[in-house]
Amino acid sequence: MSKYWSKLAARLEPYVPGEQLKDKKYIKLNTNENPYPPSPRVIEAIKAAADSRLKLYPDPLAADLKETLAEYYGVKSSQVFTGNGSDEVLAFCFMAFFNSDEEALFPDITYSFYPVYANIFNTKYREVPLNDDFSIPVEKFYNSEGGVIIPNPNAPTARALSHDDIEKIIINNRDKVVIIDEAYVDFGADSVVDLIGKYDNLLVVQTMSKSRCLAGLRIGWAMGQEELIEGLTRIKDCINSYTLDRLALAGAEEAIKEDEYFQATRKKIMTTRERIIPELEKLGFKVIPSKSNFIFISHVKVKAEKIFLRLKEEGVLVRYFNKPRIDNYLRVSIGTDLEMDTMIKKLEQIL
Amino acid sequence: MSKYWSKLAARLEPYVPGEQLKDKKYIKLNTNENPYPPSPRVIEAIKAAADSRLKLYPDPLAADLKETLAEYYGVKSSQVFTGNGSDEVLAFCFMAFFNSDEEALFPDITYSFYPVYANIFNTKYREVPLNDDFSIPVEKFYNSEGGVIIPNPNAPTARALSHDDIEKIIINNRDKVVIIDEAYVDFGADSVVDLIGKYDNLLVVQTMSKSRCLAGLRIGWAMGQEELIEGLTRIKDCINSYTLDRLALAGAEEAIKEDEYFQATRKKIMTTRERIIPELEKLGFKVIPSKSNFIFISHVKVKAEKIFLRLKEEGVLVRYFNKPRIDNYLRVSIGTDLEMDTMIKKLEQIL
Repeated sequence: MSKYWSKLAARLEPYVPGEQLKDKKYIKLNTNENPYPPSPRVIEAIKAAADSRLKLYPDPLAADLKETLAEYYGVKSSQVFTGNGSDEVLAFCFMAFFNSDEEALFPDITYSFYPVYANIFNTKYREVPLNDDFSIPVEKFYNSEGGVIIPNPNAPTARALSHDDIEKIIINNRDKVVIIDEAYVDFGADSVVDLIGKYDNLLVVQTMSKSRCLAGLRIGWAMGQEELIEGLTRIKDCINSYTLDRLALAGAEEAIKEDEYFQATRKKIMTTRERIIPELEKLGFKVIPSKSNFIFISHVKVKAEKIFLRLKEEGVLVRYFNKPRIDNYLRVSIGTDLEMDTMIKKLEQIL
Repeated sequence: MSKYWSKLAARLEPYVPGEQLKDKKYIKLNTNENPYPPSPRVIEAIKAAADSRLKLYPDPLAADLKETLAEYYGVKSSQVFTGNGSDEVLAFCFMAFFNSDEEALFPDITYSFYPVYANIFNTKYREVPLNDDFSIPVEKFYNSEGGVIIPNPNAPTARALSHDDIEKIIINNRDKVVIIDEAYVDFGADSVVDLIGKYDNLLVVQTMSKSRCLAGLRIGWAMGQEELIEGLTRIKDCINSYTLDRLALAGAEEAIKEDEYFQATRKKIMTTRERIIPELEKLGFKVIPSKSNFIFISHVKVKAEKIFLRLKEEGVLVRYFNKPRIDNYLRVSIGTDLEMDTMIKKLEQIL
């Protein structure tokens, strides 16, 4: 606490990202990064952009990247907003669409940044409890006072909502914005990008940090009809004209154009996921159905925190949340086959 | 206007950056970029960082870059905060240190992003009128209710404050934060980084977009005692854990280490500036004394807006602000010698 802090700075409770330990070499299954490197074409595009043009500001509109994303997803480029990771895009969403006197809704177990955004931007909100199996109680998101934000698949549970259920939530909130955070959608869930033309209250947020193997490049984007995109742009233009540097813009554009690599990589992750789930079940784990690049698991006998600490000792980092309802679960990112086999061997020893 | 926008989004008046025209090849003297490319060593460092590690998140603490900056500027690494351009750092400053019920002070003619930040983050503020010669009325910044922010040199006037005058402002605001925005300090003004150890209410903000030739990389930072840095970190960690991507971190670190290139480049700019000022005066321009990589000029006979439009037709972009007190001035970035000579030839034709 400092006398120099604003009232805002003084009351904040910042988000804590997953550990980035450097004391030894870990198998890193704790921040949902992709275990595969970005496509060589992306690396080449970045290197080609690293030249004297770095003396000039990047395009504040990110027009080329928006055009590329729009073409790929079948929307107009005026229906795309880009930002410094989906975290920045989500932060701007809270500022652009939610209010301090109308209750926005999100699940009680979800991306733990949402309540942090709500707190800093003074959003009124209510956390809707998930069902006991961590599925989303769809009807409880109808007729929100101030809007809705839901990740699909949800994090850290990995459970997905059906396309129909999301459409129901959109239809039953026609005067408020429904934000679907599709950070993990490419690992088996249904995107609702196809509904953007149909509903002007739908905003879909995506990222290159997971399925595009580019967590280190900080690229996120939102897609929705023009009024929503303009709302986000108004916020951005009051904070930072250029949030994506020239190298990130170049790499991101190529990552979208390089579809073959993307398809192959996400399929590898899904294949590994499906292969290891029965192995974990054999070891006594309950595994929540996953459509993501991570799984949410709980052991019938051994406490999650104990397994978390023992795995860390053994050089395997997974994520443990000391929070009500999920404090006996572990979130485990899907790594390479070798990484997952090593983890399973370690688990066999521990259990 | 949209029914989906928050009250905040609806009331905003976004900042408008300098034009980035693409219809033809321009001599770009309108956004204060550096006319010289970044050092080849910086380009190499970026290329070396463009590899499979991009699949991993960047260091959220930017520890290596902070260490490099701290060593260069003679502060501790705990006294450095890094962000996505100084714009993002400045935005976080408004959130971290200013309040809605205590009046912060900045000049009436200054970086036009300040009132935009104040508006979006609900800061109470008062614009202190500059003297008629655009110098800063130092004593009018004493005993502020809510803090002070001043660019040194000021923009778009290019005038610098003396080290002594800044120290007086700091001393006369001991209970409030004094932010000195040193975006342009490397072109001849005195930095007050040396006062950080002495005053815990001083925060100095700098950027790589001007003197380090890296506008395209989006690197800014703040230096101050630990309490102020912690205030900024609290804000950042509520919005975006990782604001600098891996390539920007690598390039920025090398840009600080490569001091020889930096010294040579900034001297070239200052030499060109001093050379062309008498030439402009010969053409009938009044030139405000400049310690920056731009000059603020006004013609005795021809209106600034007319010169601005004619130069644009001739392929030379400068910045014109249609605002009270400065609507007969042009802000002209210092380009290469060739660019400046071309501009002067065009001006001779126009006048």
